Amino acid sequence: MRLVTTAFAMTCFCTPALAYNWEPLPDNPPIPADNPQSDAKILLGKTLFFDPRFSEHGTLSCNSCHNVMAGGEDNRPNSIGMHDARGGRSAPTVWNSAFQGVQFWDGRAPSLEEQAKGPVVNPIEMGMPSLDEAMARLRKIPAYASMFEAAFPGENHPVTADNAAKAVAAYERTLVTPNSPYDRYVKGDKRALTKQQVRGMNTFAEAGCVACHSGPTFNGPQAPGQGFFMKFPTFEGSPFEAKYHLTDDGGRFEATKNPADRHMWRVPTLRNIALTAPYFHNGQVATLDEAVRVMAKTQLNKTLRPTQVADIVAFLNGLTGEFPKQEMPRLPTTPGFSVIPPIDPHLKQQRPHS
Amino acid sequence: MRLVTTAFAMTCFCTPALAYNWEPLPDNPPIPADNPQSDAKILLGKTLFFDPRFSEHGTLSCNSCHNVMAGGEDNRPNSIGMHDARGGRSAPTVWNSAFQGVQFWDGRAPSLEEQAKGPVVNPIEMGMPSLDEAMARLRKIPAYASMFEAAFPGENHPVTADNAAKAVAAYERTLVTPNSPYDRYVKGDKRALTKQQVRGMNTFAEAGCVACHSGPTFNGPQAPGQGFFMKFPTFEGSPFEAKYHLTDDGGRFEATKNPADRHMWRVPTLRNIALTAPYFHNGQVATLDEAVRVMAKTQLNKTLRPTQVADIVAFLNGLTGEFPKQEMPRLPTTPGFSVIPPIDPHLKQQRPHS
Repeated sequence: MRLVTTAFAMTCFCTPALAYNWEPLPDNPPIPADNPQSDAKILLGKTLFFDPRFSEHGTLSCNSCHNVMAGGEDNRPNSIGMHDARGGRSAPTVWNSAFQGVQFWDGRAPSLEEQAKGPVVNPIEMGMPSLDEAMARLRKIPAYASMFEAAFPGENHPVTADNAAKAVAAYERTLVTPNSPYDRYVKGDKRALTKQQVRGMNTFAEAGCVACHSGPTFNGPQAPGQGFFMKFPTFEGSPFEAKYHLTDDGGRFEATKNPADRHMWRVPTLRNIALTAPYFHNGQVATLDEAVRVMAKTQLNKTLRPTQVADIVAFLNGLTGEFPKQEMPRLPTTPGFSVIPPIDPHLKQQRPHS
Repeated sequence: MRLVTTAFAMTCFCTPALAYNWEPLPDNPPIPADNPQSDAKILLGKTLFFDPRFSEHGTLSCNSCHNVMAGGEDNRPNSIGMHDARGGRSAPTVWNSAFQGVQFWDGRAPSLEEQAKGPVVNPIEMGMPSLDEAMARLRKIPAYASMFEAAFPGENHPVTADNAAKAVAAYERTLVTPNSPYDRYVKGDKRALTKQQVRGMNTFAEAGCVACHSGPTFNGPQAPGQGFFMKFPTFEGSPFEAKYHLTDDGGRFEATKNPADRHMWRVPTLRNIALTAPYFHNGQVATLDEAVRVMAKTQLNKTLRPTQVADIVAFLNGLTGEFPKQEMPRLPTTPGFSVIPPIDPHLKQQRPHS
């Protein structure tokens, strides 16, 4: 009799939470009407994304902190920019970012196009003095002219910062990871997730995680230009708050200066979340299991049992998708010279050794 | 009559210097007997080459300073390592480096295998405290174990720094750029070089550049482990010497401490030289035409006419080869955590902005 009960209990536990509408990843993200995709534009965007010459010292490209050969970010608490500078926030993943209504942790950019222009001129990131100066460097690289012409046919002066940003955004809209075990499961392949992952999926729903982490990219309702924000921590005063400095950063308030936005954050996607440690806006939580505990306590006022944490982590590992094969771009050349300024006022020359 | 003379003179001028044995690039570089190529080894090497996790802060990979999407280096006077550190020497190109008998500007590494282990532990480059520590990080990344097993079948403990270096060297031996206009020309396609380029080719030979820049990779006689070195400047006292700080660095002497090696340098390849500005060991010369003037004066005691410089530069542009298409590697994952240490004693935290 005991055996039967256990088997029955296991069966129950492994049935997905049917009341919740689990959605697979759409094949394509929304494409804005004023920036349609094209092969030439995507190639230009990929090339710009990998080109380090639009950083002050020619050392950092978009890919340096949003590494598409990995989880789309840099697995660091915070990125390192020009002159060893660090910001206070952790680089968000570029994978599936096209499914987000707004960009940056505080949602201050309403589109990928707007986001793309930020890091180039951020003094603690790529450190260019202005977009004009970045474009001046770009114009010294002959082959970019024809690439912009091919990407923006019919325009009289296509080589602009706005078009560069459009191209980068078009490339980013190709960075989609379909066919995760989760996606295959909800499309009908009931063997795509393990029993533990299905238990975790149920616990994820029943505990209330889906209140915020809903929808196909697990970041709540999304519409172009519309962000979905949540207060973090919602339940104040847990030991995690001091331990991980959760309230040192004002969040969206820093962008809007609206007191109602203090400690409000864009709900991040959970797609490929297993690949983007360390966690949260400040990258202070090292592991996914601790991130699950922190979330449960600060957002739902729940202390999960160790098995529940393990099950949810197993489920979250099922959100890792397939990464499309990509060819490396060839960076257009400047035969006989470099566009990176040779004079370096910050030179800290050390002994020769290379 | 004058017309005929001119035509005759042009014909003479455009005939290649037949006395000199111009050699095309071989299809393959030498492969050491103890490190045969295999697809699994090359894939492992490419993956390691692009993996930034073997630098102190997880920000730099081999490719950061030896960018294979460009000319195989970083187009900077000197590279930037951990904590904004700069060395005194310019990163050499990785393209066709497999045709060099020795590695580094001072030739201190007798093979690509030995070279590969240097930058990882150089405090002003990738800054790992030791190769052991780098391998300790690598061993935390589960999928590398099977990649090493596939690359080094039959070995009991294949996950070693020596094997990592072998794999990187195997990948680098695929970084060959065939079919430059020069190669096509010397193989019989007489239209592959322009008339100006052929004039430059002749001037290059007649002026004596080929005394050092000989052979298929224009870096003199090469044999595995055997370097070809030359004193730079050979003719001392030119104004270029002070202007470009040519003698600040002792060159090979810094590695051997043998006084005879002072200001001796490995003769660099000229393949793809148009893509690797700025020039020379210290990267102090911004343009290829100035580099040609400096070489002629300091190595041959010649002051070239502007047309000769332009012709040689045109010829050197004909040494830019075809770059093979490459697929981006996927970096093996560590689900739920990062191998990059979260604690950063050098933290210079600035305002949150990412």
